[in-house]
Amino acid sequence: MLSDDETTIKELKGVIKKFRDERNWQKYHTPKNLAESISIEAAELLENFQWKNEEEINELLNDSKYKDEIKEELADVFNYCLALSIALDIDLSDALLEKVKINSKKYPVEKTKGKYKKYSKL
Amino acid sequence: MLSDDETTIKELKGVIKKFRDERNWQKYHTPKNLAESISIEAAELLENFQWKNEEEINELLNDSKYKDEIKEELADVFNYCLALSIALDIDLSDALLEKVKINSKKYPVEKTKGKYKKYSKL
Amino acid sequence: MLSDDETTIKELKGVIKKFRDERNWQKYHTPKNLAESISIEAAELLENFQWKNEEEINELLNDSKYKDEIKEELADVFNYCLALSIALDIDLSDALLEKVKINSKKYPVEKTKGKYKKYSKL
Amino acid sequence: MLSDDETTIKELKGVIKKFRDERNWQKYHTPKNLAESISIEAAELLENFQWKNEEEINELLNDSKYKDEIKEELADVFNYCLALSIALDIDLSDALLEKVKINSKKYPVEKTKGKYKKYSKL
Repeated sequence: MLSDDETTIKELKGVIKKFRDERNWQKYHTPKNLAESISIEAAELLENFQWKNEEEINELLNDSKYKDEIKEELADVFNYCLALSIALDIDLSDALLEKVKINSKKYPVEKTKGKYKKYSKL
Repeated sequence: MLSDDETTIKELKGVIKKFRDERNWQKYHTPKNLAESISIEAAELLENFQWKNEEEINELLNDSKYKDEIKEELADVFNYCLALSIALDIDLSDALLEKVKINSKKYPVEKTKGKYKKYSKL
Repeated sequence: MLSDDETTIKELKGVIKKFRDERNWQKYHTPKNLAESISIEAAELLENFQWKNEEEINELLNDSKYKDEIKEELADVFNYCLALSIALDIDLSDALLEKVKINSKKYPVEKTKGKYKKYSKL
Repeated sequence: MLSDDETTIKELKGVIKKFRDERNWQKYHTPKNLAESISIEAAELLENFQWKNEEEINELLNDSKYKDEIKEELADVFNYCLALSIALDIDLSDALLEKVKINSKKYPVEKTKGKYKKYSKL
């Protein structure tokens, strides 16, 4: 059993790589195929919230079966994110931190506190 | 600077949570909004491969600017995966490992080695 | 100028086919590429609603510039739906009617009136 | 039975509107919900091409069952495009023609004939 408290991205990449290599599936793991798969799994995740408003979702979340379905679909998206980062030799931790730095400049705290402005720009 | 070799999911969750909380953006981080955002960012990632075949992509990957764009979009998807796991208190490492176990039974090595069968079932 | 009142799908297919053929873009219009493009444009459409709740959206819809952006993204999705139906020689009108028949059986009026049941099945 | 040769968008909108209104589903047909549904169905369409290269897809297309699945998913995307155009009172034919005009200027025939340039701009 793994836990977020102690598990590194490297370890998770190892799990995904092992699964792939045992099946000789490297040939399927092209960047384009993996990006497609991330989109497909993202939509399956979104399907859990389709037609429902926030209150209905919050109520459903008391049902562990519902939450488990979401957890499983989120794992699928994460799985292919890791696979793409393996295929392209991307350091995910570094990529995330770099992007957070960019976003911090794009959305400075003093201008965005409490409101997200996109349409009617900052 | 962070690296996959040493960075735990917990640490990355901490980065995302800090960014969100400094801006008081918790109210935007509903499960439905975050699932939507994962889909939107996944499509932006896919856009890097649109209309291109594998050879063209492989050639473009020699260009660090192209690879950086992919890295940035992948970071966006991962960012919202972490945010959703925070919002729903999901342990991502555990979720991933559980899903890999399910997939290992669904796609046993001896039956799937070298070929992925979906349409014409196993 | 065209209007939904009088324009047939055949005419719209003609517009799309002409645009494609003038540029010799048939080679790009493979089923996989077009399905990818539908997903990408669908996400750009969805981006107009990202982070916003229904009230905010309804207010923004009073702004013709906002509505025009949505109209443009919807046109992109529709564009590639037509292109895929051309590439695969699919009659879209027939496809739609057939699907509505399937859905009519799946969601009979007497059981679904006023409520859409998916998670907690019918 | 309907055919693209003769069917207007108005008629197809009528079919979708009737299906919706018989079930009192207007309340679910908010712009945001419909845009989500377009994305979800677009991904289900894309799933038919997941992990497959163009040759494999072309071979599968000889199988009418495979083509019917694609036809059905394409109908789903089109269905929600029509529903969104109804909800927002958008003339789809006009929207498409306007977008083709914009694209014609963006991608002039003489500069784009035979090649689609996006990454390495025109």
